[in-house]
Amino acid sequence: MRKIIKIVEEIEPIDKKLMEQAQRRLDNLTKPKGSLGRIEELARRIVGITGKLEPCLEKKVIFVMAGDHGVTEEEVSAYPMEVTSQMVYNFLQGRAAINVLAENVKAKVIVVDMGIAKNLKSHPDLIVRKIGYGTNNISKCPAMDKEEAAKAVTAGIEVFEEELKRSGIDIMGTGDMGIGNTTASSAIVACITKSRVEEVVGRGTGINDKALQKKIEVIERALRINHPDSENPIDVLSKIGGYEIAGLAGCILAAARYRVPVVLDGFISTAAALISIKFSLKVKEYLISSHNSVEKGHKIALSYLNQKPLFDLSMRLGEGTGAALGIGLADTSTKILTQMATFKEAKISREKKQD
Amino acid sequence: MRKIIKIVEEIEPIDKKLMEQAQRRLDNLTKPKGSLGRIEELARRIVGITGKLEPCLEKKVIFVMAGDHGVTEEEVSAYPMEVTSQMVYNFLQGRAAINVLAENVKAKVIVVDMGIAKNLKSHPDLIVRKIGYGTNNISKCPAMDKEEAAKAVTAGIEVFEEELKRSGIDIMGTGDMGIGNTTASSAIVACITKSRVEEVVGRGTGINDKALQKKIEVIERALRINHPDSENPIDVLSKIGGYEIAGLAGCILAAARYRVPVVLDGFISTAAALISIKFSLKVKEYLISSHNSVEKGHKIALSYLNQKPLFDLSMRLGEGTGAALGIGLADTSTKILTQMATFKEAKISREKKQD
Repeated sequence: MRKIIKIVEEIEPIDKKLMEQAQRRLDNLTKPKGSLGRIEELARRIVGITGKLEPCLEKKVIFVMAGDHGVTEEEVSAYPMEVTSQMVYNFLQGRAAINVLAENVKAKVIVVDMGIAKNLKSHPDLIVRKIGYGTNNISKCPAMDKEEAAKAVTAGIEVFEEELKRSGIDIMGTGDMGIGNTTASSAIVACITKSRVEEVVGRGTGINDKALQKKIEVIERALRINHPDSENPIDVLSKIGGYEIAGLAGCILAAARYRVPVVLDGFISTAAALISIKFSLKVKEYLISSHNSVEKGHKIALSYLNQKPLFDLSMRLGEGTGAALGIGLADTSTKILTQMATFKEAKISREKKQD
Repeated sequence: MRKIIKIVEEIEPIDKKLMEQAQRRLDNLTKPKGSLGRIEELARRIVGITGKLEPCLEKKVIFVMAGDHGVTEEEVSAYPMEVTSQMVYNFLQGRAAINVLAENVKAKVIVVDMGIAKNLKSHPDLIVRKIGYGTNNISKCPAMDKEEAAKAVTAGIEVFEEELKRSGIDIMGTGDMGIGNTTASSAIVACITKSRVEEVVGRGTGINDKALQKKIEVIERALRINHPDSENPIDVLSKIGGYEIAGLAGCILAAARYRVPVVLDGFISTAAALISIKFSLKVKEYLISSHNSVEKGHKIALSYLNQKPLFDLSMRLGEGTGAALGIGLADTSTKILTQMATFKEAKISREKKQD
């Protein structure tokens, strides 16, 4: 817990002054003022987050955290638990959606076993920070104990710091793998945003009406028996969270501490972001939501974070796939800021005075 | 006109059978069915358009067509006419927004002078297909005569064919530069979609309320005195069009003829697309709208084309900037289709049977 407290205390507000300077440069570039819309907004935010007027997002990293969920025994997912580890092997083979999308924007994918139910064969690209062999069934008892929750968040921080030290990180994306984790995430979103369970529960990988009803009941039971304290992130994680969600929350905290923009993927990542802002509200300004997930509760979670996602492509895959697209656009936005000519440089006439 | 008729006659419907095959492959990839949403839809469409089950969009080209508009003497734009040529020089220097965004997705930018009001200094990357020195003021007389309109469309076709022969084109984006061209485009959109002028007129590069009112009156006058026949694309172009808009319509026809996906930029490009479908309705299926422009009439034009844009980033710059982003996503979508592992290849368990 000491590590977490230290990191959280060191998080600074973003640099608003520098954002104004960035805006002035954007207004002098050879285009009508504001005509690149959200791309300009994105560039400005990255300047504020990084504290650099000419940010260069060369080192792009997506952390894909994986963990299993005891609650899957309640039949809340369309896929069996073993798919978590099978998909992790798929990531390591480089042939999952996240590999294709990350490669496309030159982002490195770092896969972390935070708590898969079985031991995976070792692989040079797999980081093992296993806190447990899957969480407990949250509809019957807490997901994990408080020490485990703190350990998982700390592991997320350390994984980030190790990569930062080893190769550098200019921008970070979040990603997840864990059969059953839309159930845990829905519970977190309902708890923190104080929403009714049926408002935030969706079909995950694709369950039918009957299973959806079951999922709602399971989450209601989980909240009822566990009583998570919505203002205490460790309490929420330990009672209704997941190892990979805790790890992502740690990554997010570390990114904010080191002034690295955080591009959030979809529903699971946004649940992790909700946890992270309960450690410090300052984290909010470091978050960039990539896309609007099909998963029902995502909108509610985003609105709690004051986030308007960049894309709306009817995606609901997770893994960091939306984050990869968002990282691409973030990179583009900084190139607009730094590579375009100004009106003066290009000797172009300015706007006429309008009466 | 003969060239245009020939190209239009040769346009074939897209391959729906192959799209079904693509869907089957998408459904077997290691992700829940449909979970990549519009990325899957895009991949499927590109298969249908190209007629290739494993399309490779290596040769990406954005045609940026430039022309001037006599109607600028009515004070319908925030910028003076000379900005058209100044911006074209900026494109050729490689320091405009379109250069940055095209470079980012490895697309080649081809700049064409279709009818700028002055002669530009020659440049190895500038194609000159000048039909006239700016159009006439459409609020007083037709923009050009019918022969010029046909010549401009033919030039667009030929520019496309020359590049296709020289280097190949796997996917095409449209782009424009022309002070005053939102006025011509608004007139085209009002005429073809049979909308009221005030419903389709926006602020272009950024005019104030007074100028906006003026712009509406100018367009209403242009439509009243010219009586364009909305079902006759050459008539519409000659009366209320622009040289660059005609050129883009030609590019679009040629792309459809050669089964090359057309990624439309914003308002001006969509007006050109409206023209192109009046030559042949088959063209519709070759169009991919990249983004939702801030320009007011864009939504109406897109709905006439049954298009749902990929992005909504509050952009309103033109030049092909939105098309560049769309080309990037199109490329990504084909990589998802061709590079991801199937469930069988990755030995991953399928969905459980749900009762």
